[in-house]
Amino acid sequence: MRTGVWLIGARGSVATATVIGAAALRARLVPPVGCVSELPDFAGARLPDVADLVFGGHDVTGIPLAKRAEQLARGGAVPEHVVRQVGPAIEAAEAEIRPGHQDGDPGQAVERLRDDLADFRRRHDLERVVVINVASTQPRSEPHPATRDLASLEADLHVLDSSSLYAYAAMGGGCAYVDFTPSTGGRLPALRELALSRGVPYAGSDAKTGETLVKSVLAPMFAQRALRVRSWSGTNLLGGGDGQTLADPLAASSKISSKGRLTTEVLGYPVDGDIHIDYVPDLGDWKTAWDHVSFEGFLGVGMTLQFTWQGCDSTLAAPLVLDLARFMSAAQAAGRAGPVPELGFFFKDPVDTTQHALSRQFDALVAWAGAL
Amino acid sequence: MRTGVWLIGARGSVATATVIGAAALRARLVPPVGCVSELPDFAGARLPDVADLVFGGHDVTGIPLAKRAEQLARGGAVPEHVVRQVGPAIEAAEAEIRPGHQDGDPGQAVERLRDDLADFRRRHDLERVVVINVASTQPRSEPHPATRDLASLEADLHVLDSSSLYAYAAMGGGCAYVDFTPSTGGRLPALRELALSRGVPYAGSDAKTGETLVKSVLAPMFAQRALRVRSWSGTNLLGGGDGQTLADPLAASSKISSKGRLTTEVLGYPVDGDIHIDYVPDLGDWKTAWDHVSFEGFLGVGMTLQFTWQGCDSTLAAPLVLDLARFMSAAQAAGRAGPVPELGFFFKDPVDTTQHALSRQFDALVAWAGAL
Amino acid sequence: MRTGVWLIGARGSVATATVIGAAALRARLVPPVGCVSELPDFAGARLPDVADLVFGGHDVTGIPLAKRAEQLARGGAVPEHVVRQVGPAIEAAEAEIRPGHQDGDPGQAVERLRDDLADFRRRHDLERVVVINVASTQPRSEPHPATRDLASLEADLHVLDSSSLYAYAAMGGGCAYVDFTPSTGGRLPALRELALSRGVPYAGSDAKTGETLVKSVLAPMFAQRALRVRSWSGTNLLGGGDGQTLADPLAASSKISSKGRLTTEVLGYPVDGDIHIDYVPDLGDWKTAWDHVSFEGFLGVGMTLQFTWQGCDSTLAAPLVLDLARFMSAAQAAGRAGPVPELGFFFKDPVDTTQHALSRQFDALVAWAGAL
Amino acid sequence: MRTGVWLIGARGSVATATVIGAAALRARLVPPVGCVSELPDFAGARLPDVADLVFGGHDVTGIPLAKRAEQLARGGAVPEHVVRQVGPAIEAAEAEIRPGHQDGDPGQAVERLRDDLADFRRRHDLERVVVINVASTQPRSEPHPATRDLASLEADLHVLDSSSLYAYAAMGGGCAYVDFTPSTGGRLPALRELALSRGVPYAGSDAKTGETLVKSVLAPMFAQRALRVRSWSGTNLLGGGDGQTLADPLAASSKISSKGRLTTEVLGYPVDGDIHIDYVPDLGDWKTAWDHVSFEGFLGVGMTLQFTWQGCDSTLAAPLVLDLARFMSAAQAAGRAGPVPELGFFFKDPVDTTQHALSRQFDALVAWAGAL
Repeated sequence: MRTGVWLIGARGSVATATVIGAAALRARLVPPVGCVSELPDFAGARLPDVADLVFGGHDVTGIPLAKRAEQLARGGAVPEHVVRQVGPAIEAAEAEIRPGHQDGDPGQAVERLRDDLADFRRRHDLERVVVINVASTQPRSEPHPATRDLASLEADLHVLDSSSLYAYAAMGGGCAYVDFTPSTGGRLPALRELALSRGVPYAGSDAKTGETLVKSVLAPMFAQRALRVRSWSGTNLLGGGDGQTLADPLAASSKISSKGRLTTEVLGYPVDGDIHIDYVPDLGDWKTAWDHVSFEGFLGVGMTLQFTWQGCDSTLAAPLVLDLARFMSAAQAAGRAGPVPELGFFFKDPVDTTQHALSRQFDALVAWAGAL
Repeated sequence: MRTGVWLIGARGSVATATVIGAAALRARLVPPVGCVSELPDFAGARLPDVADLVFGGHDVTGIPLAKRAEQLARGGAVPEHVVRQVGPAIEAAEAEIRPGHQDGDPGQAVERLRDDLADFRRRHDLERVVVINVASTQPRSEPHPATRDLASLEADLHVLDSSSLYAYAAMGGGCAYVDFTPSTGGRLPALRELALSRGVPYAGSDAKTGETLVKSVLAPMFAQRALRVRSWSGTNLLGGGDGQTLADPLAASSKISSKGRLTTEVLGYPVDGDIHIDYVPDLGDWKTAWDHVSFEGFLGVGMTLQFTWQGCDSTLAAPLVLDLARFMSAAQAAGRAGPVPELGFFFKDPVDTTQHALSRQFDALVAWAGAL
Repeated sequence: MRTGVWLIGARGSVATATVIGAAALRARLVPPVGCVSELPDFAGARLPDVADLVFGGHDVTGIPLAKRAEQLARGGAVPEHVVRQVGPAIEAAEAEIRPGHQDGDPGQAVERLRDDLADFRRRHDLERVVVINVASTQPRSEPHPATRDLASLEADLHVLDSSSLYAYAAMGGGCAYVDFTPSTGGRLPALRELALSRGVPYAGSDAKTGETLVKSVLAPMFAQRALRVRSWSGTNLLGGGDGQTLADPLAASSKISSKGRLTTEVLGYPVDGDIHIDYVPDLGDWKTAWDHVSFEGFLGVGMTLQFTWQGCDSTLAAPLVLDLARFMSAAQAAGRAGPVPELGFFFKDPVDTTQHALSRQFDALVAWAGAL
Repeated sequence: MRTGVWLIGARGSVATATVIGAAALRARLVPPVGCVSELPDFAGARLPDVADLVFGGHDVTGIPLAKRAEQLARGGAVPEHVVRQVGPAIEAAEAEIRPGHQDGDPGQAVERLRDDLADFRRRHDLERVVVINVASTQPRSEPHPATRDLASLEADLHVLDSSSLYAYAAMGGGCAYVDFTPSTGGRLPALRELALSRGVPYAGSDAKTGETLVKSVLAPMFAQRALRVRSWSGTNLLGGGDGQTLADPLAASSKISSKGRLTTEVLGYPVDGDIHIDYVPDLGDWKTAWDHVSFEGFLGVGMTLQFTWQGCDSTLAAPLVLDLARFMSAAQAAGRAGPVPELGFFFKDPVDTTQHALSRQFDALVAWAGAL
């Protein structure tokens, strides 16, 4: 069951770490640490092997994957010796990267993107292709009324931002689609309609790799212990491309909103507190998040929990990209179409569900994957 | 359904906060924050009302409850205005405290303790009495062979330390019994036999109120994300009576062992790292715990999570004492006898189970309570 | 040597804690912890006794001091038992509070403010009066050209914001003046001219009580060890009136700028990193600051220092108000006029100096005070 | 002015990083970050150039320097590309390493060690040689009475542990000597006598590279602000060889005692709190220290400061080794003999002084170096 993994933002840090990681797993250079789909809980699920994944993608920049791999190694995001050993896999993926969409007529763009996908599928004789958007976050704006149904949308594709244009192209091309970032992507009624009509599944949005992952277990803890959270404040320091993008306040606000929703939805009441995303170039691919939770115990006594998370975002994201590719391929094989809330385990802003408690999400994922 | 709550260590911080808290809840001075049994999830369970709990207990010291209440208020563990308003409840509990067991013939001691329990039950016309050990932690030693079965034990009660003597007296007196501390208490084969033969339930050990509570959600998070924990180190700074007791290395070691087991049992592999418990008198009833978790992500890249917990132990413990009294009373009413692993949600070292993941424990508790 | 201490913002948290603290010191209820001027280093300086300070002030609100004292006690900023014992001192200060300046003709306002100061001095037979601005921070705007010299300023007092109007009134009335906040206050060329001509000293701005205090010793540490700071990020969570004021982005920016200057001036090169001030109401008078410093060691290896400060701002500020009153009174007695850079030890944005290293500032203060 | 730097423990992490660093500085591969002696404050001091330092030393293990360099690079303690470029310097130092002292007759050992030093000096035509002990920490025991004066000592050299035997050999051989670790080394009356009689300077003990460095600025801050420290607790997690050595409780206790002295001596009163040193192998050359300071402000209100330091010990130590070699060489050239308290800036347990405040130590160092 050969599956294509087509990455929007194929020359970025996450994509590069994904290609390197898949090759390292295939060559058994590393154990599958960080790979959820390799847990015993999913032993019975009919997922494609990591060794059967083939990589390609779109990107607007021309920086060679090998160069980006070198940067990642220098920043400690991937080990240098692994990069040295997976050169051929990097070259193979390099050969499958096509220019991303920038400007120009959206109709023509869609046609071209679909041709790229179709060529990729044909060339590698792939049973199916999962398209995953790991490009820089785009600011979310109020969706245009024309995105409310497919007919209106198809009358005017100009209303789509580029993340949604990729989703449109992917779904229309019969590919499963994943929003790995908080960009709008597939989260529009018209695209839901398209996914259902074309019989493709989609999942998203905004993979939780660090601070929000921790929040998704701490917030349920407070809830189950009947402790009342008074405020939850967070500061995220990040360098790298992502930090720079999110320093743009508009883009940040879409990220911040998907981060903030969790506490309210898990706890059932609004919680005070700001979330900051700061661009700190010297941190490179690494992120430090500090969270301060002020909560109330019995008899109104106030207490505090703080945590500091220091992680490498690309390295945390890459195995989840592999997981999502495998789960989505299996979902499509099993005939699932439209939004897949059961993949909420992976996301800050899961589609079609308000369940944010990690343990519940894990149980839902195990049950769903077992039934595919 | 009037239920007696008999506290071993009835003049300690936890007991005093429990008596104050129950009175404050009855008088609706405070909302039931921190009270698990008041969550909507347990709305259908047939639990005694907090207003129907009657308090008494044993203690070896003579410090009046009112004085201890004042100390707690000064240390910020309970609000001064609440203490002022629940004076009569404090006096009522004071009138029900009897001298604890110190030295002397264990057989006579047991008889006296049981008489105290029987008198208490009669005087207040109680349907049942739950005995909860909230006394200072006693060092655990290798259990005497005579504790392996009830017949051998009853031939020589001298082999029991005082925590177990209380458990023996309680169970033999037909009372449900809870080990709130890591002391041996009811955790002996002979006492299990006694509980089963007398038809009384027992639960324990070592309530998780702070650092371990947080670990019980973070460790499953690492497991579910397939991240490998390399080391987990912890330092606990605490003042108050508990700090002083645990500064005794032997006592500390029993606490440390019940704290350390969690990571191994949740993760399935041994994890490096020391756990310290330091006595820092100026912290009073407050505890600060710092945990440092070093973990491995994809491709062998190391990352870090640290947290700092600042909580008031007595205030965190008190509502759990009320919860346990209610659940155990209901369990006995429903005919449960012997160990109750479904109450593992409350404990660092739950009896008869290796399940430490908080969310799983919560689900088990909800299911069990609903079926009582 | 009786000295008046006239507080702008006399009903605020800082002023109230100051009045309570001075009374508690006079009555020997507490040791002089937090009082710099009581250190042995200043034993030889000719400072007025704390017992000889008399309090009064202006405020625009009418909340009684006693009520504010109660709030402070409830929030843990001052001990309840101390408040109970200094009732008469609170009442005495209450009787000396006059309505603050709000709107209306600035010339008439100045006249009225000066009359209040003169009456205060006369009524209590004070040798001198130190005016200290502890009112809410006002946003700093570009100073009007008329503030460049005294003659232009006196032609049009409308160009002064209220913090500067108080400074103008105080200096013109022959009073030493202190900017305890980052408001403009006395920091204008015209007011410097006035202070020099009237022979009164002034000091400021923005007392360093927490995060910046710590920075003022850590930054020199990095400098003296030749370690290169790459970024210094900070998040300040604060409730209370101050938090609410600083939530106004303009006001915050004046505070942020006086906080950020330190690293650049101590280290000698610009340092990356944002500083956030978040209003978190549930924290009351307490403040939590988290700072993350990323620095470079030998051979370009990056390392990290983080700190978390949890302090009570009013309680930290109050003894510094007493210190400043004592030092300024002595300075005026010794004939010092104009800016006093030697008091830079107390401020984030010290007047007439770029020295921010705490230890250097302390030495300068000791030398200066000894020579008064 | 060619100066030899003879390292006891010449194959360890600190020595290796020192050799690499000196070569990198000479080749201008890196700026002198972390090098105190390169600060403008020392521009006038007559110090040997780093380029004029020649390295050799003793070690009991045979692991090649090049291999250790590789390990350091893999652990992120030194950059891989630097190691690649300084191969010849590593080989040069390798050629100057002689077997360290293990067992056998101390008299013969001293003779052999001195021959090694003399050969080194001759071979490289060195003006002088500074011996610096960077070997693993040895447990300190009660010094033997015979170490109280030189005559008694020379009658029985068996009473010296190996750190002191090296010191004896070095001083007797006319070499300046530095205790970079907390081992006894030169800190014995008999050795002081020897240093004075032979006209050689010595300095120590226990370089402060991380947690204690931070304490040496924070403790003075509390003192200068008249804030009372109630407790100061610390946990140090470290891997690498140092962690393993210090896991031996006896060795740790000598380190802990030199760490704990600081607060008492700076603050002038004893301070509660434990210090832990934990061996956490997965941290490699990196160290994480968490300190928790509970302090009292005005009116008895308790507050808290916590910090987390994450540093690479070898990388922090190496430039200090270079600094000490340069300062000691200059001191000997200037005729200083016996203990040098003015180098206290570098040490946790400075010889002949109780001054621990970093800023004061820096001033003393600048003054002393300028006068050489």
